[in-house]
Amino acid sequence: MKTLIKNVYALLPDGTTPLTNIMIDRDKIASIGEVPEDFRAAKVIDGKDKFAVPGFVNAHTHASMTLFRSYADDMNLMDWLNNMIWPAEAKMQEEDIYWGAMLAAVEMIEGGTTTFADMYGPYMEKVAEATADAGLRAVLSRGIIGVAPDGDAKIEENVSLYKDFHGAADGRITVMFGPHAPYTCPPDFLKKVAKTAQSLGAEVHIHMAETKAEIEQITKAYGKRPFRYVEETGLFDGKGTLAAHCVHLDEEDIAIIKKHGIRVAHNPGSNMKLASGVAPVPRLLKEGVCVALGTDGASSNNNLDMLEEINLAAMLHKVSTLDPLAVPARTALKMGTEYGAKAVGLTGVGKLEAGCKADITLFDMNSAAWYPRNDLASLLVYSAHADSASTVLVDGKVLMEDKELLTLDKERIFYEAQKCAERLTK
Amino acid sequence: MKTLIKNVYALLPDGTTPLTNIMIDRDKIASIGEVPEDFRAAKVIDGKDKFAVPGFVNAHTHASMTLFRSYADDMNLMDWLNNMIWPAEAKMQEEDIYWGAMLAAVEMIEGGTTTFADMYGPYMEKVAEATADAGLRAVLSRGIIGVAPDGDAKIEENVSLYKDFHGAADGRITVMFGPHAPYTCPPDFLKKVAKTAQSLGAEVHIHMAETKAEIEQITKAYGKRPFRYVEETGLFDGKGTLAAHCVHLDEEDIAIIKKHGIRVAHNPGSNMKLASGVAPVPRLLKEGVCVALGTDGASSNNNLDMLEEINLAAMLHKVSTLDPLAVPARTALKMGTEYGAKAVGLTGVGKLEAGCKADITLFDMNSAAWYPRNDLASLLVYSAHADSASTVLVDGKVLMEDKELLTLDKERIFYEAQKCAERLTK
Repeated sequence: MKTLIKNVYALLPDGTTPLTNIMIDRDKIASIGEVPEDFRAAKVIDGKDKFAVPGFVNAHTHASMTLFRSYADDMNLMDWLNNMIWPAEAKMQEEDIYWGAMLAAVEMIEGGTTTFADMYGPYMEKVAEATADAGLRAVLSRGIIGVAPDGDAKIEENVSLYKDFHGAADGRITVMFGPHAPYTCPPDFLKKVAKTAQSLGAEVHIHMAETKAEIEQITKAYGKRPFRYVEETGLFDGKGTLAAHCVHLDEEDIAIIKKHGIRVAHNPGSNMKLASGVAPVPRLLKEGVCVALGTDGASSNNNLDMLEEINLAAMLHKVSTLDPLAVPARTALKMGTEYGAKAVGLTGVGKLEAGCKADITLFDMNSAAWYPRNDLASLLVYSAHADSASTVLVDGKVLMEDKELLTLDKERIFYEAQKCAERLTK
Repeated sequence: MKTLIKNVYALLPDGTTPLTNIMIDRDKIASIGEVPEDFRAAKVIDGKDKFAVPGFVNAHTHASMTLFRSYADDMNLMDWLNNMIWPAEAKMQEEDIYWGAMLAAVEMIEGGTTTFADMYGPYMEKVAEATADAGLRAVLSRGIIGVAPDGDAKIEENVSLYKDFHGAADGRITVMFGPHAPYTCPPDFLKKVAKTAQSLGAEVHIHMAETKAEIEQITKAYGKRPFRYVEETGLFDGKGTLAAHCVHLDEEDIAIIKKHGIRVAHNPGSNMKLASGVAPVPRLLKEGVCVALGTDGASSNNNLDMLEEINLAAMLHKVSTLDPLAVPARTALKMGTEYGAKAVGLTGVGKLEAGCKADITLFDMNSAAWYPRNDLASLLVYSAHADSASTVLVDGKVLMEDKELLTLDKERIFYEAQKCAERLTK
């Protein structure tokens, strides 16, 4: 099926925002520019007063944790985990995982996100089901904690997830391995995960260097910092690694990241709210490291709004380096789209360019935040909000049109998610 | 006229959020709780699925500068001022000031802001006119630059503004004096402003200690830091002072702030985007200083979204102090409402409490960001966005109902503002 987005301002990979047309053929962008005479569109989307950008890529989240949104805020991290989150998580059933992910899916689509990289469990197959139902693109991993007695069973769950869902939903779902973090996975366990992932040719998604406490704990336990510790287990020797957070880095850590081509998922909102610290993002970008953006879970952020993360990435690094040019608007947008796709291991995603997947978000510019129209990319990053997202396509399929969700029943999802949350937290 | 907001969750001054009713009699909240039997409402607003909070108080902005939104971003401050903003401002006519303020009014009402403290000029009477037309509450001051040749004329403009508009629009408009900043006002000039303001019993609105460069410049010129410098001119000896920014403070500065009861307008968004630095807000709050929130102008922020400032206030200070409890959600909300009203010199504003002005914003909770409903204040600050604001009252009068603006013609305003901006910036 062919779709035409007509007369739309579009953010191209070179940062320009011309008024143009986007031709879509099945799941891909066929071309951008003049409408070819022989292009017969079955569906035409009017782009008037709309701004088309690549759908956002949320490079690190825990979708089902959306059920814990606003359940435990303004607390110390260990207090939050020990007394609130872990007891509630222990009660989670399959339906909680599903409805939590469905609530996340509503929020992601309504905010213009088209891809998310998720690490959670158990029952990750329910997140896959939610992804398929919603029509989103997802990179799933089973969060594997090695210090738990059932660590090996969790590796097996990740193997099953890989075998059952890698390439599923018309290829929209891919699977990584999800060893949780250096402080929850002992060396022999990480070696086992590395070996298993590498035997399948699978990539790895892991939390790295999130807090000062983690650096201290690992250094005390192993006599080396987290990056060196994990490197020596061989985990970084596989097909590729997506490392979330990377807040506290020294020169050796950065050298390890570069050596293994590790892609970083920066989570400014979560790092701010949990007071984890400020990741050296301008430095990493300057070193050529692929830095993407993630929301982290809605229990620590507290939303799944990628435009907010893009804004925070642009704002936080300016003030923390006292350099107003530290992360410009267009760089932040690339982090949330093109670099995001690269970070989560997808090629041909994250750009408005012929041959790329038709994962596209149209922002409606008919509100005060979009006037005057001096610079559309700047308006999007510094002024507008996620609610301006009006039409969202994934794989060329329309998931939301003029604010109406076409794949999801919002009322039902809100009802079920509320019911699950009450059972888990009361 | 009596208005009833029925069956609504309301954020009370003690931080609780009960399901209740709000009775309004003319411009004030008559009571909150059970509906009195003899309360005959001419208008009933259904509060179902709504969250009522005091209307936000934007304690520092330059409304008409909204015309320069996205005109010059990702630049160094002096570059931005010298080469972009000042040349464009030099062209501003009465109509630009009016339509810029009207565009700001649309954005403020749609985002739940009911009061704004504005410093700008010339033609501040046009901002007063826009305030009256929109139905907003405003605290206006003529921005006075003493280093310009027409400094004295600007003082006279502020005197006229005071005489013509202090108490205007049914008391919704009050007027302060607006000496711009220590680095634009020499000592004798500040003394003249102080004397003039004090002879009228007027308060003062001034930028203070915004950048490191300002501290260095004033210290070099006068052998003392900005707060001591201004204190010695007598400017702080009048009825009251609203000091915007206050980013770079030492012990003596904080002592001067406390001694004179100076109220601080913190602008986290602007300070982040312009890379000015992080104000010591947790310290000021601990010292009992009244700290409010402002957006600054939309040319440096780039929007007038107070909920975003509330969120940033809660987030920025957590990460900059590495303390996840630094500014909790409810404190940030008070900064944007109750403390804001106090900071801009208004009494009986900024709280949902019997006897207070009926300046109220209702947030529609029927979206993913508001589920699950664990903690409404937390959801508002950390998850929701300004677009959830659905109904706004000022002085008991409805300015927006279910997202429909009742006092402003949005299409016309967007058109006129765009036209003005094009003339100024092309």
